[in-house]
Amino acid sequence: MKSGISVAEASAIALGATRTLAPESVPTPEALGRVLAQDVRSDRTLPPADCSAMDGYALRAGDAAPGRALPVVYEVAAGGQASRPLAEGEAARIFTGAPVPPGADCVVRQEDTLAEDGQVTIQITPTGGDHIRLAGEDVRSGDVVLDAGTPIGPAQIGMLVSLGRTIARVHARPRVAVLSGGDELVEPDEDASGGRIVSSNGYSLVAQCQEAGAEARNLGIARDTPDALEALLRAGLSSDVIVSSAGVSVGDHDHVRPVLEKLGCELVFWGVKMKPGYPIVFGRIGESGPLVFGLPGNPVSAMVTFELFVRPTLLKMAGHTRLFRPRVEATLAETLEKKPGRAHYVRVHLERDEAGLRARTTGNQSSGVLRSMTQAQGLLHFPADAERLEAGAVASVQILDRRFGDETDPPA
Amino acid sequence: MKSGISVAEASAIALGATRTLAPESVPTPEALGRVLAQDVRSDRTLPPADCSAMDGYALRAGDAAPGRALPVVYEVAAGGQASRPLAEGEAARIFTGAPVPPGADCVVRQEDTLAEDGQVTIQITPTGGDHIRLAGEDVRSGDVVLDAGTPIGPAQIGMLVSLGRTIARVHARPRVAVLSGGDELVEPDEDASGGRIVSSNGYSLVAQCQEAGAEARNLGIARDTPDALEALLRAGLSSDVIVSSAGVSVGDHDHVRPVLEKLGCELVFWGVKMKPGYPIVFGRIGESGPLVFGLPGNPVSAMVTFELFVRPTLLKMAGHTRLFRPRVEATLAETLEKKPGRAHYVRVHLERDEAGLRARTTGNQSSGVLRSMTQAQGLLHFPADAERLEAGAVASVQILDRRFGDETDPPA
Repeated sequence: MKSGISVAEASAIALGATRTLAPESVPTPEALGRVLAQDVRSDRTLPPADCSAMDGYALRAGDAAPGRALPVVYEVAAGGQASRPLAEGEAARIFTGAPVPPGADCVVRQEDTLAEDGQVTIQITPTGGDHIRLAGEDVRSGDVVLDAGTPIGPAQIGMLVSLGRTIARVHARPRVAVLSGGDELVEPDEDASGGRIVSSNGYSLVAQCQEAGAEARNLGIARDTPDALEALLRAGLSSDVIVSSAGVSVGDHDHVRPVLEKLGCELVFWGVKMKPGYPIVFGRIGESGPLVFGLPGNPVSAMVTFELFVRPTLLKMAGHTRLFRPRVEATLAETLEKKPGRAHYVRVHLERDEAGLRARTTGNQSSGVLRSMTQAQGLLHFPADAERLEAGAVASVQILDRRFGDETDPPA
Repeated sequence: MKSGISVAEASAIALGATRTLAPESVPTPEALGRVLAQDVRSDRTLPPADCSAMDGYALRAGDAAPGRALPVVYEVAAGGQASRPLAEGEAARIFTGAPVPPGADCVVRQEDTLAEDGQVTIQITPTGGDHIRLAGEDVRSGDVVLDAGTPIGPAQIGMLVSLGRTIARVHARPRVAVLSGGDELVEPDEDASGGRIVSSNGYSLVAQCQEAGAEARNLGIARDTPDALEALLRAGLSSDVIVSSAGVSVGDHDHVRPVLEKLGCELVFWGVKMKPGYPIVFGRIGESGPLVFGLPGNPVSAMVTFELFVRPTLLKMAGHTRLFRPRVEATLAETLEKKPGRAHYVRVHLERDEAGLRARTTGNQSSGVLRSMTQAQGLLHFPADAERLEAGAVASVQILDRRFGDETDPPA
């Protein structure tokens, strides 16, 4: 087991042990947010025939001139078909999406005509091809329309159903079991006086899993005994990932590691040179069992280590290839100091001014101060070897806030 | 009713008619993604007492020096309490989160000690306050910890449960009824030959609603008769928003407007100077009835007009204040031309190079070509009055892709 490794090494080890989950078939409307597990090849052409892009009149461009009246010999509705080819000098009433009758080569928009007594008077000079949507201009039969690995958004949903694909082959969502350990912990509806504290990690970690697209269960609190912990860990064995918080430090009451070993967990690393969050365990239970992340118990440490190690793992399992948060460069509003050795992940608020983004720490950076997270939009990276970042220096910030960049003002 | 208005005016009218929905009480874990409807004031102090930040030994800093051994007189576990004040020259075993015994003024980390035979030998020179987390350093009783209007993410979930708030007061999620109109439309599992086309809009619009945090129902397809349309619209009357697509143009088969008027809908505007998507109806049914958006039937027009007008409306209903997508400046990779009069929303793919972002159109920009949306990361704004944007010019792009900016490479 490795110990005291860098964030980069720990991240690479965890992702190296992660396999993308097998595909499953889900109703297309429920595939939103999933990742396609195979290419989608069209077996149809869209539009299937040349069709009108507007409501108006189909005719031969050569027959029309401003002021000329043509007889309207039939009508083609969307979903309908022409009853016969259009002859020279004839017009057909046509609606958006309707197939253009054989013989016609353009559509004149209704707004550019006057209709009366079975005749239509054209008020413009049309050109062949006007307002006709050509067969296959969107999709040709045989085209690969969506590639394996594509994340499914609303447009992909629309395309899949346009092709008649009511079932989508997508990677499974990771199933995560979340548990917390500690005799001092109580559920949030229980009495939190007398040294007891509410176990919030189970709730924030489940929410982090959900934001990453995973299915998470909060298994609750294990008391500080090996048996209690083992029982809860066993309940998580059918999951793809087990995330525990607390119990991974060096104190006498820390049972996570021995219990994990008893369950056949190969411990891969313990301890990552970072703050918050040094005491992190990563392991796996057998070849096909869950990955196990033992995170620290402090609320901020648990959330930050989840962010750095668990979230990319969940995204990779779900089939994503872009596993890491957006990063921005920001100018420090204050000077930061630390000892060398551990990378610090400083919770910052970002403000945009004329010079770009300015990063300001969200107050007390103690790993017990959850407010430093509720006010943070990003994690500023204070590298392991650095001792001082001057006010005015530029640093890299990982964006945590999914709504970062959303605008208050409408576009101009 | 206004007609032929600008995008900015249409957006302002729709948002002006939008009210934020009333608060409701939901279990805190289900409040993820919602917006707080009232300030959250703490009735507790966190941590409730001075407590240890580490596993180690509580003692008086003045009693300790490298090599000095102190008797370990008792132990304080997390969740426990000291049995008596610590006397001069004594040490107490203490665990992370446990209250610091009266009399002690610092904690020496376990790693900085040697414990043997009921004694602990200190190996460093501690300072008063070391490794003690002060009462109230996170939250003081009476503090407003989260403000009304805050979007709830994982950190807010953790904070709420830390305060014992198992129920959150949040704005309701908008309920949206989505319907489509047209005789040519079929459901995606039906035969789409012979001029019929799959009704994809219902599915893509529902997905757009879901991405915006709304609850959406797809009411399906109304045939091109006033009665069919009226029946479907009536099914949507209990919703906060009705979104229909197709049927709002000027053709003979367009019944949406007359049927809406029959249902008591005040039509506020028709027609917005944009492409894709001129024929848009906006109205409201009575003072307390739903807002109604009649969107065009072309798949791209429906999605783009949803994006510009419906999405900000849904976000405002849900309590958000940042209603608009992030915008970036991008350099055009090609020259674009159009007639003046309508603003164009060009679907573009964005690539980052050394000079910044480059925008390239996603092929055929016909409003029937859904592939222009499946490949797009953003909508480039080609202003109404402009006729030409030169390759190399800088334009504003609204980002559609929620994962835009996610990185393939881990942070350095």
